[in-house]
Amino acid sequence: MNDSTVLDVSGQRFTAVYQVSGDQQEATARAQDICFEQTVEFPSDLIPREDIREKIVGRVASIERVGPDLHEVSIEFPIETAGTELTQLLNVLFGNISIKPGVRLQRFDLPDSLLAHYRGPRFGRSGLRELLGVSDRPLLATALKPMGLSPEELAELAYQFALGGIDLIKDDHGLADQAFCPFDKRVAQCTEAVARANAQTGRTCLYLPNISAPADQIVARALTARQVGAGGLLLSPGLVGFDAMRQIAEDDRIALPILSHPAMLGAFTTSDANGISHGALYGQIHRLAGADGSIFPNFGGRFSFTPQQCQQLASATAEPMGHLRPIFPTPAGGMGLDRAKGLCDFYGNDAILLIGGDLHRHGPDLAENCRKFLTLVEQSVGS
Amino acid sequence: MNDSTVLDVSGQRFTAVYQVSGDQQEATARAQDICFEQTVEFPSDLIPREDIREKIVGRVASIERVGPDLHEVSIEFPIETAGTELTQLLNVLFGNISIKPGVRLQRFDLPDSLLAHYRGPRFGRSGLRELLGVSDRPLLATALKPMGLSPEELAELAYQFALGGIDLIKDDHGLADQAFCPFDKRVAQCTEAVARANAQTGRTCLYLPNISAPADQIVARALTARQVGAGGLLLSPGLVGFDAMRQIAEDDRIALPILSHPAMLGAFTTSDANGISHGALYGQIHRLAGADGSIFPNFGGRFSFTPQQCQQLASATAEPMGHLRPIFPTPAGGMGLDRAKGLCDFYGNDAILLIGGDLHRHGPDLAENCRKFLTLVEQSVGS
Repeated sequence: MNDSTVLDVSGQRFTAVYQVSGDQQEATARAQDICFEQTVEFPSDLIPREDIREKIVGRVASIERVGPDLHEVSIEFPIETAGTELTQLLNVLFGNISIKPGVRLQRFDLPDSLLAHYRGPRFGRSGLRELLGVSDRPLLATALKPMGLSPEELAELAYQFALGGIDLIKDDHGLADQAFCPFDKRVAQCTEAVARANAQTGRTCLYLPNISAPADQIVARALTARQVGAGGLLLSPGLVGFDAMRQIAEDDRIALPILSHPAMLGAFTTSDANGISHGALYGQIHRLAGADGSIFPNFGGRFSFTPQQCQQLASATAEPMGHLRPIFPTPAGGMGLDRAKGLCDFYGNDAILLIGGDLHRHGPDLAENCRKFLTLVEQSVGS
Repeated sequence: MNDSTVLDVSGQRFTAVYQVSGDQQEATARAQDICFEQTVEFPSDLIPREDIREKIVGRVASIERVGPDLHEVSIEFPIETAGTELTQLLNVLFGNISIKPGVRLQRFDLPDSLLAHYRGPRFGRSGLRELLGVSDRPLLATALKPMGLSPEELAELAYQFALGGIDLIKDDHGLADQAFCPFDKRVAQCTEAVARANAQTGRTCLYLPNISAPADQIVARALTARQVGAGGLLLSPGLVGFDAMRQIAEDDRIALPILSHPAMLGAFTTSDANGISHGALYGQIHRLAGADGSIFPNFGGRFSFTPQQCQQLASATAEPMGHLRPIFPTPAGGMGLDRAKGLCDFYGNDAILLIGGDLHRHGPDLAENCRKFLTLVEQSVGS
């Protein structure tokens, strides 16, 4: 069809489910509102062409009562509205509607034709296990901190952690490129320290520097990390944008596993009535954006996620999503060795368990503390 | 000092003010928590060096009761923690703390030594007025929509809007690079249409294509826009990240005014107890990130900001912030011609008034409707 005023769309749609506040009448009005607000953003009666109303505007598929004054509304959007870009997909899912209180993005379902535009996690659960040579237990992670230590001091920590059996050592997410701990120096020294420990242990421990950085420097930092031999990367999509993570994940020159950090993402989940559900945010969107592991604050730590929210999150890291690999839920945020067994029981084998400060609490021999962590996990899962 | 274990920091600090829930005892505990969570993220008793506690950890400057169970706590962070990067500054201001309910970033104050790393808005209020040749009234803006129209149809709309006296015509924020309206075609045709109208009117109307795009394509789209002669750019920092906007604003090859759109940013403001205040988000952070105008949903439209929130926001677009230029508050979100006088009264001359769908409601002659808009504004401000 060469007539540019005739919309040439496939008729295929993707589904987004929102939890909305209000009684059935209000829910119906809100559902209708979402259909317009997330697409044409234009008064219904002024839409100039009937095919736009039919082929562009969202469509209410169902409205279901799920609680007192609470409904789940299911909206079908034409796949063409989201184009081939994560930024625009996020815009259709939650762009303007994010500003209206009482609407929460609960989950979404994308057909293969839309998923085809996303490579997703390069490694995922199986790929990361293969890199590490660990097939049958939760993976162990920790962070290099506190901020203020020099690259040399952090490298010494990394060496001890790797010696003690940690699988993944990430930079603290607040280590950027500060004068007191420049990125290049830190990455070179920590990478070297972990390689030295690996040579001693015969194991594979990966060091993941933080490449959350100015937009024009993220790729360069990732390439630096790759070049000096770092084992993976840490990124905070709330700081750099989800699509920056996707770009890094898809870049074949980089090809390193990615752990994501939740900095700045809290606003999406602090209120039950608004924002994005834990599963959609830390599971579905992180997989679209190419994270191999998704760090979040576990229940009972310094933060306030509930066990139910963590469970929903963990499920979403592995639920079917076309060709997109399952990724690791990575509970963190004030966990300690005393929580190791509980974490294993709750998340099972397919999780990365991240313990930070508490590894420093069990005596001066950090490697020994890590061995305790590993032993506790191995005992808990019976491996 | 060559001893790398001695922290060489300036002693200068920047201040962030948070509103926290709870009585004075809780507020004191929360303030203390913010000091650690946003810097070392490490148990206080385990910090290995005293100079880290002194020189890196945040410091409580004041705790003030501002309402029932509500306090404002003022925290001073060493400027070095934020490095020279917007991503890390945002991380210190609100990274982890975003995940803790009951903490809201209210405002912040950066010393010149920290502001020096930010160019800020390239045009700001005075620069944009100069470009447009409009010195003494609110600026008029509209959007090209609805999604589903072809580039030709949008260009015809743009032509009519420009003919009728609109100053700034932006793409609808949902126009990305969809097959039914490709970016390159749209930008070329709309730019040409607006130039044609400008030649007829002798006025300067700017067309601002939406360059919210995948991380690796934003700069290319901005350069395309510049090359074909577009007058400005639209960006949604909630979709692309604030630092992507800063990058575009600082790029001398691009050098076009930027309007920001609030898509996905709603989660920061939907709850009074959490998130970021309207002024800090749409005023201060947008200025750091180089927006020349900050679009937000005005009170009394389709969204739910209050007059007080809008007032706080508008104030923050112009309050002293070192060398950073004041920018235009850009109220939008369901405004109509009947609101023109009220908008002028509320915001005064220094605002961009954005009316979208309603311009289509006053008869088929869009240019004539725009003239009505201009006349209403001119009468309201007595120019």
